[in-house]
Amino acid sequence: MNLPAKVTVKEVGPRDGLQNEEEHISTIDKIEWINQLSESGLSYIEITSFVHPKWIPQLGDAVDVAKQINRKPGVTYAALVPNERGLERALEADIDEVSIFMSASEAHNRKNINKSIRETYPVLSPVVQTAKNEGKTVRAYVSTVFGCPYDGTVEVDQALSVCERLFEMGIDECSIGDTIGVANPLQVERVLSTLSNHFPKDKLALHFHNTRGTALANVVTALQLGFTTFDSSLGGLGGCPYAKGASGNLATDDLLYMLEEMGIHTGVDHHKLLKSGEWIQHVVGKPLPSHHMQMLRSGGIQV
Amino acid sequence: MNLPAKVTVKEVGPRDGLQNEEEHISTIDKIEWINQLSESGLSYIEITSFVHPKWIPQLGDAVDVAKQINRKPGVTYAALVPNERGLERALEADIDEVSIFMSASEAHNRKNINKSIRETYPVLSPVVQTAKNEGKTVRAYVSTVFGCPYDGTVEVDQALSVCERLFEMGIDECSIGDTIGVANPLQVERVLSTLSNHFPKDKLALHFHNTRGTALANVVTALQLGFTTFDSSLGGLGGCPYAKGASGNLATDDLLYMLEEMGIHTGVDHHKLLKSGEWIQHVVGKPLPSHHMQMLRSGGIQV
Repeated sequence: MNLPAKVTVKEVGPRDGLQNEEEHISTIDKIEWINQLSESGLSYIEITSFVHPKWIPQLGDAVDVAKQINRKPGVTYAALVPNERGLERALEADIDEVSIFMSASEAHNRKNINKSIRETYPVLSPVVQTAKNEGKTVRAYVSTVFGCPYDGTVEVDQALSVCERLFEMGIDECSIGDTIGVANPLQVERVLSTLSNHFPKDKLALHFHNTRGTALANVVTALQLGFTTFDSSLGGLGGCPYAKGASGNLATDDLLYMLEEMGIHTGVDHHKLLKSGEWIQHVVGKPLPSHHMQMLRSGGIQV
Repeated sequence: MNLPAKVTVKEVGPRDGLQNEEEHISTIDKIEWINQLSESGLSYIEITSFVHPKWIPQLGDAVDVAKQINRKPGVTYAALVPNERGLERALEADIDEVSIFMSASEAHNRKNINKSIRETYPVLSPVVQTAKNEGKTVRAYVSTVFGCPYDGTVEVDQALSVCERLFEMGIDECSIGDTIGVANPLQVERVLSTLSNHFPKDKLALHFHNTRGTALANVVTALQLGFTTFDSSLGGLGGCPYAKGASGNLATDDLLYMLEEMGIHTGVDHHKLLKSGEWIQHVVGKPLPSHHMQMLRSGGIQV
């Protein structure tokens, strides 16, 4: 099995996880959690979103969170930014990396952004330009690459077109998303083989959801193809926005267990990570869906 | 990706799932469930256990279940048998295939069977001989191949020795078990490469647990190595006997989703299977842990 020696795990829990939580989480608790995450050895944390608080009230304290966390040297603190107004706030908060987002499928893009794919580019292009001019790196999320909750099948050419336009704008990395967790390893192999014919593998990250249990199988396929950057959310926080109670984001704790056992270096202290998972589980006040959080609750493992 | 065209899924829920359920399930309900499973297109169902009812009271009605189910032509109805006394009852109930069991690790074998590995062979050998003389096929489960809850690491040579002795006795198939769900794909590749140097791949089945979320990733690795028989339990019924509330058996519904999406033929009707999963979930009176059962409960999918 041909595997990379090390992998970068990008923790998206404080943004992608918390934005789906109904329970109000205090700014103090968010700051404490992000500090715990950087202390665990994670080198990349997406800490909040500068989407207008009208849409995501949970993350309305984005500027305060960004300004008050401890900035650990070597850690990239990123945040989601939808447009130029959001970018202004992100720059004010001195975010290291800006994440923009759109979808590979027309219907999901329209539902999520209220624009066609074609109409989205002129909104994102000045965000990328200004962010780059300000010395920031830019990541783009491309959602629904492996399937769309409205359009169903998504052709790899649709993702390819969107990625091409985003890289032309000057983004540094593109995160390829299985937004509804339908991907299987064979499809992952096909899609990633095509994408890696057009873009360097180290410019692509994988953002798998575990809705149907296939996320780690998809990770292994991507590893074997030479991909080394994966997004995940501690404890699987956030669930599935399309099916309440179902699994959503791949869980950082489950991902790290598998990577470590396969001898792949991540730089993350699994023990500290699990402690932090227990802590945020207590804060959100409900059981988190990851396998390791299940094991901790059941006494199958201890930290 | 080199994949087989078809795979045999062996449903172990009525035995391996139900034996861990505390809620008493009536004989009528067990029979109804097994009939549903065979109607879904599954070609192999482990329907009960002839372990003494003192140890597994839930399956004390083994003879009644075996005698009263509809025997669908083409379906193999198997049952667990610990010793000659159990075999007598299994033969009385006209079971198609007899499953014996032991562990690759000394400590788990002793806890489970109350004998050393060496002392276990003389108990199993006459069971295999008599069953074969009666025209039955025999399957052996080898537990803790990838790790032991008491001994920790298990060397592949330990599994190899046990499998060799069992094949010498005349078993038809050996099911290689990750009893505590610790296996990762790299380990699976190493262990299965070694085992397949000694035994034909079509005589080996894989019995993965999803305790740490790696079961489907392990299945994909085994598929790529040419293995085509997998054990699973509908809905993930049974949980983890070592950690209450954690995932146990790989779920048949999740396994089938992935196989079908990868174009691998199973012969099973996923829709009927999910209906049957909902039915047994209602009977056991608690939510089943598989991803597809989560999706059904959340309304993310319908049947």
